[in-house]
Amino acid sequence: MEKYVLGIDLGGTKISTGIVSSSGRIIESVKVSTKAEEGSDAVIGRIKKSVYDVLEKSGMKMDDISGIGIGSPGPLDSRKGIIDNPSNLPGWNKVPLVKIIEEEFNKHTVLENDANAAALGEYIFGSGRGTDNFFYITVSTGIGGGAVTEGKLYIGANSNAAEIGHTVVDINGPLCNCGKKGCLEAYASGTGLAKAAQREVESGADTLIKEIAAGEKINAEHVFMAAERGDKLAQKLIDTMAYYLGIGIANTMMFYNPEKIAIGGGVSNQWDKLYDKMMASAREWSLKPLYDACTVVRAELGGNVGLVGAAALAL
Amino acid sequence: MEKYVLGIDLGGTKISTGIVSSSGRIIESVKVSTKAEEGSDAVIGRIKKSVYDVLEKSGMKMDDISGIGIGSPGPLDSRKGIIDNPSNLPGWNKVPLVKIIEEEFNKHTVLENDANAAALGEYIFGSGRGTDNFFYITVSTGIGGGAVTEGKLYIGANSNAAEIGHTVVDINGPLCNCGKKGCLEAYASGTGLAKAAQREVESGADTLIKEIAAGEKINAEHVFMAAERGDKLAQKLIDTMAYYLGIGIANTMMFYNPEKIAIGGGVSNQWDKLYDKMMASAREWSLKPLYDACTVVRAELGGNVGLVGAAALAL
Repeated sequence: MEKYVLGIDLGGTKISTGIVSSSGRIIESVKVSTKAEEGSDAVIGRIKKSVYDVLEKSGMKMDDISGIGIGSPGPLDSRKGIIDNPSNLPGWNKVPLVKIIEEEFNKHTVLENDANAAALGEYIFGSGRGTDNFFYITVSTGIGGGAVTEGKLYIGANSNAAEIGHTVVDINGPLCNCGKKGCLEAYASGTGLAKAAQREVESGADTLIKEIAAGEKINAEHVFMAAERGDKLAQKLIDTMAYYLGIGIANTMMFYNPEKIAIGGGVSNQWDKLYDKMMASAREWSLKPLYDACTVVRAELGGNVGLVGAAALAL
Repeated sequence: MEKYVLGIDLGGTKISTGIVSSSGRIIESVKVSTKAEEGSDAVIGRIKKSVYDVLEKSGMKMDDISGIGIGSPGPLDSRKGIIDNPSNLPGWNKVPLVKIIEEEFNKHTVLENDANAAALGEYIFGSGRGTDNFFYITVSTGIGGGAVTEGKLYIGANSNAAEIGHTVVDINGPLCNCGKKGCLEAYASGTGLAKAAQREVESGADTLIKEIAAGEKINAEHVFMAAERGDKLAQKLIDTMAYYLGIGIANTMMFYNPEKIAIGGGVSNQWDKLYDKMMASAREWSLKPLYDACTVVRAELGGNVGLVGAAALAL
């Protein structure tokens, strides 16, 4: 018989709450703005309301739900159920979210870092199905990751395992948002691509990117649009991004020797523009037996991965 | 009641075979030269003989032994029990060593890559005791590693997990023995240190290293000896090695978020000369919550780690 769980994907911008079946089907979902600037009490109020709303919308009762899973930005302590000062949830000082949600709904609740939750979702319901050792990399404004080892989500000492965005690939590389230099994220994220484009535009390079941005702050999408219109510089920047993504993949192969690596996040929508260069680079920077043991695929769950992943935590 | 297992540490130079108790005590052991150049049949003959010898020496019978564990250089397939062409065991083309040993001794046998076996040994009997998430790094002529996730040795898709020596830390770095550039091993291994010293000597640097080497090929020990005698260049090279080791440690923290990292191998004998610089660098190149969650220690089993690790496989 199918079970039903509640997934809450708590983000800095939006909260997605949904009822998900044990086969991964989203029965019903709601999305609201986080309004993180209003502080933790207000946001927690919105989380609770979104749960009541999705139950009402679905015609289900809390009795029909077997558990609640929450994916949240870190740092957090999943064992204690505490969120501790994520940069995009200001004012959340050691907030015991699991306790708060369990008291409200009297239902077993699990909290996990959002990239780990997404990895689990993708493992159970997406591209990781059928493997034992799986690694998920999400590439959007930042780069995050999650690892499944021998069929179980591996979270490490304090829920931060697979923090691949901040692994160093080039100690002489550009400055990352984290304050270190040469992190994978500084090269291969959407932000990294946008910043590289910004540097080129500022130095007066011959490119359509500035025109496409039309006064907006340059973002990754502008660069991909320029490349589509034949802009050589944009294409070069994308190739460089793919090259560094390949190095990140190679280092993942060396560290985890996974059977499969799946790439998700907004940038994976540009799969065809990245794949060949990315894999050539992964081959170049890895040892052959580890490269040969691993398939690299596009993640399958798309924009639902956060919600389905959160729900998967409760299964 | 204590159990007894047989550990075989098969190396390119030496074979160590011993009877180890379930509390990690070496009851008896023998060490013979591998003479790898004589090919797999001859080496396997020596392995078998070493098992008979250690039994005789100990006064025990095969009936007293509950299993056999073998640590070997990779590539190998631990699930199939096959060794497949390690560079320091020439001519071992898909040798089914587990089957051969099981047929000879009629005893359940487990084969694992030597760094993984050492990690397990250090986890069960050494510095990893009492942790759930542990990472072992061996630094000698090369750099290898092994990971324990949630209390179990994690080997990955084909026994190559934790191949940390060949993770890229600087894409513009020196050439590694593997053919890639900027691998951790190229900087932070004994070989990397010796090569860096060699380059300095060749360029006419003011250093005692050449005098200490006295016509021999420069090795890591020469560099440490020079530093002990106040040689500034040698100290600078050692500091650089420690710095890169720290980056390797930082990347390990990011990828595995372990509670503990233990450093073993010959170079760990120089612990006091490496520790401060290494940890300052690990701090510099890691994110604080992951750094704070992890203790970095010197491995405890020393030269016995290969043998005890091999035995641990059979426990």
